[in-house]
Amino acid sequence: MMISGCDWSIGKSSETKSPSGKSEVQRLNQPPVPPVITRRGHEVTIKMTAQVTQVEISKGVPYEAWTFDGTVPGPVIRVQQGDTLHFALHNIDPQMPHSMDLHAVHAAPNHKFIDVMPGQEGTFTYTADSPGVFMYHCGTKPVLMHLGNGMYGMIIVEPKDGYPTDPQIDREYTIVQSEWYKENDYQAFQNEEPRYVVFNGNNFTLTDHPLTAAVGDRIRLYVLNAGPNEVSSFHVVGTLMDTVYLDGNPANVLHGMQTVLLPASGGAVVEFQLTEAGDYTMVSHQFNQASKGAAGLIRVTASGQ
Amino acid sequence: MMISGCDWSIGKSSETKSPSGKSEVQRLNQPPVPPVITRRGHEVTIKMTAQVTQVEISKGVPYEAWTFDGTVPGPVIRVQQGDTLHFALHNIDPQMPHSMDLHAVHAAPNHKFIDVMPGQEGTFTYTADSPGVFMYHCGTKPVLMHLGNGMYGMIIVEPKDGYPTDPQIDREYTIVQSEWYKENDYQAFQNEEPRYVVFNGNNFTLTDHPLTAAVGDRIRLYVLNAGPNEVSSFHVVGTLMDTVYLDGNPANVLHGMQTVLLPASGGAVVEFQLTEAGDYTMVSHQFNQASKGAAGLIRVTASGQ
Amino acid sequence: MMISGCDWSIGKSSETKSPSGKSEVQRLNQPPVPPVITRRGHEVTIKMTAQVTQVEISKGVPYEAWTFDGTVPGPVIRVQQGDTLHFALHNIDPQMPHSMDLHAVHAAPNHKFIDVMPGQEGTFTYTADSPGVFMYHCGTKPVLMHLGNGMYGMIIVEPKDGYPTDPQIDREYTIVQSEWYKENDYQAFQNEEPRYVVFNGNNFTLTDHPLTAAVGDRIRLYVLNAGPNEVSSFHVVGTLMDTVYLDGNPANVLHGMQTVLLPASGGAVVEFQLTEAGDYTMVSHQFNQASKGAAGLIRVTASGQ
Repeated sequence: MMISGCDWSIGKSSETKSPSGKSEVQRLNQPPVPPVITRRGHEVTIKMTAQVTQVEISKGVPYEAWTFDGTVPGPVIRVQQGDTLHFALHNIDPQMPHSMDLHAVHAAPNHKFIDVMPGQEGTFTYTADSPGVFMYHCGTKPVLMHLGNGMYGMIIVEPKDGYPTDPQIDREYTIVQSEWYKENDYQAFQNEEPRYVVFNGNNFTLTDHPLTAAVGDRIRLYVLNAGPNEVSSFHVVGTLMDTVYLDGNPANVLHGMQTVLLPASGGAVVEFQLTEAGDYTMVSHQFNQASKGAAGLIRVTASGQ
Repeated sequence: MMISGCDWSIGKSSETKSPSGKSEVQRLNQPPVPPVITRRGHEVTIKMTAQVTQVEISKGVPYEAWTFDGTVPGPVIRVQQGDTLHFALHNIDPQMPHSMDLHAVHAAPNHKFIDVMPGQEGTFTYTADSPGVFMYHCGTKPVLMHLGNGMYGMIIVEPKDGYPTDPQIDREYTIVQSEWYKENDYQAFQNEEPRYVVFNGNNFTLTDHPLTAAVGDRIRLYVLNAGPNEVSSFHVVGTLMDTVYLDGNPANVLHGMQTVLLPASGGAVVEFQLTEAGDYTMVSHQFNQASKGAAGLIRVTASGQ
Repeated sequence: MMISGCDWSIGKSSETKSPSGKSEVQRLNQPPVPPVITRRGHEVTIKMTAQVTQVEISKGVPYEAWTFDGTVPGPVIRVQQGDTLHFALHNIDPQMPHSMDLHAVHAAPNHKFIDVMPGQEGTFTYTADSPGVFMYHCGTKPVLMHLGNGMYGMIIVEPKDGYPTDPQIDREYTIVQSEWYKENDYQAFQNEEPRYVVFNGNNFTLTDHPLTAAVGDRIRLYVLNAGPNEVSSFHVVGTLMDTVYLDGNPANVLHGMQTVLLPASGGAVVEFQLTEAGDYTMVSHQFNQASKGAAGLIRVTASGQ
């Protein structure tokens, strides 16, 4: 299933049979440029580009970003535990090498996360054995430069036996927190003085276009903090996270959390119920981050639309 | 039970039957201004003010703080899991709106955490279903301004069935970590350059007036990191935290911890035994925070007084 | 067993019976100055010095460090759960007092972590009852000064019954993350603007001299973040941490983690398998830390040498 336009949802589980037993790989994200994915059994082929693309990080604030598939964050990759990934990175940036480091796989970095030269395509094969919500990113040196300029995204590896809470979930969304610095200014990257800290690439989409839910829905968020430098204190105003799976592994369960602390390159599956109609704000409760943009809305209505 | 003056203790459990089976709501804090709380069954009425009050954040250093009930942190609210809270906020600040965001409840923020105008009183009803140690704070925009100026506190929701370790606990105290910045300087708030990082509102009370314990006592601390911006590495010198409940939920247990990492707006119940007479220092082991004031003493004596 | 020279390994478990059932205390570290340790049953005597020593924190960058035993970090202390430690600190720094705060023990700080004056030797006795990976450090005031100048190290307390994963482990190593600031500049220490963030004392040893493993080895790292100010997002490129014991306590297990968030003065035992020959980089994924030196290599070869 490919979702285009500004639809962030992974879909209602009742409609798509997500998150368990899917017969095809789901991809979703804000960008209208989903990557090409094909599946034969547990052999999955994924094609992505590395390219420079101008993105809007705040209203009227362009940034010449280094991207996967032209968006920041890059497209969400969703595969199943045990899949073998055949990953092709086409580097259409004429200026410099790029690469792909997937936190979800076991692979010798100096063989399988290696630089792909401008104009070239690199193909790599590895398996995704461990379930969870992971970061992917360009690992070309200086890594902080490639991260600070936008080369990261989320890969979801669905647990073989699902999450124990799967039957309760009505809606799923993805949130990637990251920082934007003074453009292409490595010193600023190092000094950890971000101009913006954002969810899903900019500081306005998730407030202008709230995520939606119906009264009583149980929401699952796949949350990733891509950094590159800061940790995140993820919080949803007006509710508690009944279930939290750290790094998205079903074995790492917490309950009744007000706030989840995510390392740089840490993920979580967080689940909660929204019982009253209204607007619920997601933030990083490190409030200088929220004040720099790390905020978004979930709008709960009777219809859920 | 209301505790006035500088007594920080929640009381010895043998005396007050805390933390289980209490027939009334316990309130405790440093300030001599406990809020008005009344209880009928599981219907709890809580009244607080929003007001500007000068507080002393370091010796001889006044700060025109924005407060709940005239103190920073605001009074500790202690209720029972399943309680319905009838919360009244009387805004006696003539200058601006304030509000109350309780991390302990499920409530649509744009209906129940809304601004209360100067001179007005707002009343809100919600239930506290999930046990733990939570933050409350003013959620009026800009939130970072209201947080940085002092509008936060702790709400304890006692677990319905208590903590498994309840029978072992001899003393309970509360610790709220937070940051003070250059007065009312939003830029300083955003830049995360705190002048002081403190426990329970200032950098001297908990060293001048140590918490007390008797040799061999098992101590329970309810710890909250209110931020607004920084995380905390909470540590007690000279002991290990035998039991830690993350966000105070009995389901989230860790053992034998030297240090507990708290997100901004994260809490924990931490328990340990002090087996020798002496002075034990609590710190944030992010030692620049400790050097800016995030320290306090527990004095252990034969008598425990 | 004492290990000298640049050998960082604790040894293959098959050879040394580590980490369970050892008849003597293992000590390991980069420095060629292992501390004197003797054991009689569960009575362990440990002797260390406090001294000023010039160390190299980056190539060609000397630092007049305040040290334990002349190295930063100080030697790894490895004892068994239940041991009674007789610790002697000989302060051969002519300038100032120093002290020893062991996070692994229960002890009244104002009696057993006290200052030892220049030229004096202090002897202290305490037991290590709780298993894990802990920090030790000088606790003399101003503590941040003593930490920032290098006075910290790791103490491992082996669990009485071992870790459930002991039989699977082929190699063990230790990693201590810490920050270096402008030399002896307390203001810089407080402002949290490190020049270097390093593993095991400097930014080159662990890249020039990779840790070694054979294809298929299961690696255990004892990881400590000594700070003094920052948290760490510990990550190993190219693998997942199958098992993580927070603060090294067998009761605190996480699985399938991409990144482990460590507080300042937090530890972990992390275990993973490296299934392909190649170079695997360890980093703090707070990438400005990695860019300042928090990186090291594990080299996996057929022979493992």
